[in-house]
Amino acid sequence: MKFTKNTRLLLIFSALIGVIAAPLVMAEDTEQALLGKARTIFKPLPDTIHVDDYPHSKARVELGKALFFETRVSQDGRISCASCHNPSYYGADSLSVSMGMQGKKMARNAPTVFNTPLLIAQHYGGNRVTVEEQAMKALLNPIAYGNANFAVAETKLRALGYEKLFGAAFPNEANPVTAENWGTAIGAYERTLLTPAPFDKYLKGDKNAISKDAKLGLEKFINMGCAGCHNGSTVGGQSYQKFGILEDYWLATGSKEMEQLKGRDKGKYHDTKKDEDIYIFKVPQLRNVAVTAPYFHDGSVAKLEDAVRVMARVQLGQKISDTDVALIVAFLETLTGKIPAQFASVPALPVAGFSNLHQ
Amino acid sequence: MKFTKNTRLLLIFSALIGVIAAPLVMAEDTEQALLGKARTIFKPLPDTIHVDDYPHSKARVELGKALFFETRVSQDGRISCASCHNPSYYGADSLSVSMGMQGKKMARNAPTVFNTPLLIAQHYGGNRVTVEEQAMKALLNPIAYGNANFAVAETKLRALGYEKLFGAAFPNEANPVTAENWGTAIGAYERTLLTPAPFDKYLKGDKNAISKDAKLGLEKFINMGCAGCHNGSTVGGQSYQKFGILEDYWLATGSKEMEQLKGRDKGKYHDTKKDEDIYIFKVPQLRNVAVTAPYFHDGSVAKLEDAVRVMARVQLGQKISDTDVALIVAFLETLTGKIPAQFASVPALPVAGFSNLHQ
Repeated sequence: MKFTKNTRLLLIFSALIGVIAAPLVMAEDTEQALLGKARTIFKPLPDTIHVDDYPHSKARVELGKALFFETRVSQDGRISCASCHNPSYYGADSLSVSMGMQGKKMARNAPTVFNTPLLIAQHYGGNRVTVEEQAMKALLNPIAYGNANFAVAETKLRALGYEKLFGAAFPNEANPVTAENWGTAIGAYERTLLTPAPFDKYLKGDKNAISKDAKLGLEKFINMGCAGCHNGSTVGGQSYQKFGILEDYWLATGSKEMEQLKGRDKGKYHDTKKDEDIYIFKVPQLRNVAVTAPYFHDGSVAKLEDAVRVMARVQLGQKISDTDVALIVAFLETLTGKIPAQFASVPALPVAGFSNLHQ
Repeated sequence: MKFTKNTRLLLIFSALIGVIAAPLVMAEDTEQALLGKARTIFKPLPDTIHVDDYPHSKARVELGKALFFETRVSQDGRISCASCHNPSYYGADSLSVSMGMQGKKMARNAPTVFNTPLLIAQHYGGNRVTVEEQAMKALLNPIAYGNANFAVAETKLRALGYEKLFGAAFPNEANPVTAENWGTAIGAYERTLLTPAPFDKYLKGDKNAISKDAKLGLEKFINMGCAGCHNGSTVGGQSYQKFGILEDYWLATGSKEMEQLKGRDKGKYHDTKKDEDIYIFKVPQLRNVAVTAPYFHDGSVAKLEDAVRVMARVQLGQKISDTDVALIVAFLETLTGKIPAQFASVPALPVAGFSNLHQ
């Protein structure tokens, strides 16, 4: 193919414009400044979540993994941690709100289980502090495991043949099959479920680990104020905040109908009954947000783009352009890690030596 | 320690008695005769289940695996093939009878999914011939997937973003997202779920692959008449038989109460309405029977030992000694294979671009 001189000039000119309008890389000083700023706000995930109060052992993590997938401790024999924190859906369940026994709906959307031991607390209302406490108390939730008391659950665990595994996991205890150890073992397993992502590589200094769009999105995310709440190693999950600071969330998302039917979810107030806790929710972590739709405590928003728009509007009072939404989404996608191998592989559980445990 | 001469003699004498009463190995000719007989009755599992009508392709098996674990095609967003055929329970669910949506009970116990494409038909009544047909028709079962018609399921599959995966699995079809292809893909995956076991090694000539007790149990199993129905590569599942030939099964197992409450399960009769089909059930395969309690079509028997006793009594009219039960169980345990790796590892599924699909 041959070009005329004019055509050639036009092509060169267009190419130059292209470079000026959308350079492939950021200028080095801008790049360095952004990384520096990001490092003051976020932290890479740790390699392990080891704290003195929750010691790991191989036996304890293995027991925790078995219990995480064990359905037969629930009243109907079908609910396990993995029912709402499913390996196929990045540790969440892909439903608006979770489902317990007999198809009964839970109050809120199930967040991913990944990285949760790093959060300030568990549940949107923060009424469970540690993952250990959350796992233990779920045994008594009437639409989750539905056990009348801990002794019922413990009896089932013994009948299922778990005594040996509990003994190995808690070697110094005379009677290791307890609800507390159920929680401790599941917690030990959950403390291994970390999902390092491209953003961690970036924070550690690999500037090519995320795209230019992601970096521009990161800049927007910081400058617009998103990072005011969504910060730290889990990009959120470290504080509480009112949902709907500048505008009524329920009007903004069109959840009015749900409100009329069921009453508004008043967040932390449900547990504390303090007026100042009305509409206060734990800020959710944003790790793996791009792969854990739908969004918000009620799962009322389907698309990440729309969730970003709602947040800008009701939390920051800003109308955000489609371009900026796309850039922020590009940044959020850098928070997607790999499903941990020890979560994607389901354990074989003890063969039950009985039938009709669940009526 | 020092022994007197008499004590030493006594010890030697006792040891000799021990050897005579319980030799560690069978005599070579007995051994060879047993293997020869076993080979006329049973067959090792094939390496693959490839039949011309159900071609494999990597893309098709991968799609089938995703669909097997996909919950969002069910009415409530929580039921998948894996709900009743769970990797944690050797492809069964460890419940007496299976559970569908809203905690509703299925009519019968869920058998393991392993090796099922080799069976004469699917379901205890045999009303589904191939695994492909079973998977397709489950979409409309009101307490399983609960779709009003196939079009509803197909619309969900498209909304979930499965078009590309169906396209790759069925490359020559203009409109590949169909309920029929759902069945074909799941079938392609299920046709990979074979569980070769120590008994296969034995049948292939490795006489040390199973214990002496297992061999004695195998001999009993053949000589008592169990192998009359439980034969072939799947040790059953190749024919139909009346349940309770010599004695009423419902009286023998104490299931009388269940009968009064719900009416007897009349087996194949429910589908055919022919009198000769009353109490006729497909003979279940016995592969992995030791790890898929509870037993029988109603899951009414918890222990394998008791199931063996019931079978001897109501099918063969024999009262069997505890020793013989233990030997037969030792043989049945040689039918336990490994959970296939492609079943224990759960796939990541498409991120849903919507919420509130399930109301």
